[in-house]
Amino acid sequence: MSSPTDLRRLRGDRTRRAVLDDAVQEASVRGLDALSFGALAASAPVNKSAIAGLFGSKEQLQLAAVERAAEIYTEHVVVPARSAARGLDRVWALVRAWTEYSRARVFRGGCFFRTVEIEFDMRDGAVRDAVVAAQRSWEAYLEHQVRLAVAAGELAPETDPAQVVFEVDALLYAANDRSLLFGDDRVYARTIEGVRGVLAARGADLAALR
Amino acid sequence: MSSPTDLRRLRGDRTRRAVLDDAVQEASVRGLDALSFGALAASAPVNKSAIAGLFGSKEQLQLAAVERAAEIYTEHVVVPARSAARGLDRVWALVRAWTEYSRARVFRGGCFFRTVEIEFDMRDGAVRDAVVAAQRSWEAYLEHQVRLAVAAGELAPETDPAQVVFEVDALLYAANDRSLLFGDDRVYARTIEGVRGVLAARGADLAALR
Repeated sequence: MSSPTDLRRLRGDRTRRAVLDDAVQEASVRGLDALSFGALAASAPVNKSAIAGLFGSKEQLQLAAVERAAEIYTEHVVVPARSAARGLDRVWALVRAWTEYSRARVFRGGCFFRTVEIEFDMRDGAVRDAVVAAQRSWEAYLEHQVRLAVAAGELAPETDPAQVVFEVDALLYAANDRSLLFGDDRVYARTIEGVRGVLAARGADLAALR
Repeated sequence: MSSPTDLRRLRGDRTRRAVLDDAVQEASVRGLDALSFGALAASAPVNKSAIAGLFGSKEQLQLAAVERAAEIYTEHVVVPARSAARGLDRVWALVRAWTEYSRARVFRGGCFFRTVEIEFDMRDGAVRDAVVAAQRSWEAYLEHQVRLAVAAGELAPETDPAQVVFEVDALLYAANDRSLLFGDDRVYARTIEGVRGVLAARGADLAALR
């Protein structure tokens, strides 16, 4: 049987998660600096000081939001692509999952990381470091799959995997940013066409990519 | 001979320009919402209420900053490329000028428009409209040059100019954003390589592009 302490902790965990889910949505629109314990309390079952107690400082709230956003990103981009074979199929599945993640507005303001990268790119500190680490982690994963595609002969042996990742990411982020700015989601088709060009230039068999 | 009124107006124009030049630099780092008459007065020869008098409202200050930033952008990206022949040479010159404009930090926070596009992409209003118009104007100019390249036979007849612009812009913005986030300007070489790929895929003679 649970003790009163366990129950309190469980309730605290649930509240924390609910507040964080709200925080990452809000930050995707207005950025992490716009977060405040007071504003979050307006839609939470607990008051401002209880929320402050759960997170500590605003910076800790921001760091927790980056961590939670990374979980959501993994769940919507990385996990769905795991059913595809490693290498080129996985690269393609990641691109499809990413465009779907952005188009479906998993985060209300489009990709959470796009917003906070631009917000923190000129600053120093733990939040910027966390944002950079999340971006590096995604790039490393994508680059690993490109390397596997090269090793399997699905892409030309002279392929520079980091260059492919740079070009693919550029196209993904362009669709996200422009669909938001112009309110027009036809840009996702442009990203798909662009990525096909990037892969075709390295000898990929496009007919094999659905 | 200038009348006292003319002299006052001239002084007002000079002050307004100096404040605006300060404002666009600041906004490139922190965004347009972070601008305030008070903060701008700290580095201006006149006080806060004089600055408020020159601009009226904060929104008018933001609109004036977008207009001034567009002038600076034209001066650093469009004007230098005018010495190149229209069509493919001009497209290439624009790409080189853009990467130089971003790398040289003409705006302290990297491309002014990247920062404010992400800042305003989820809002309505006159500032967003001005930012969208500036982006559309740049795209239209670049697309026009791509069309001229197709018409001149420098790019394949089946080329979709809007797709080329989408891909080229994606690569330009990626270098800007990443050089800021990672503090590493080797990404500009990745953009140049990527754009060469985009043009080569449409049959461009890369040897002719310096």
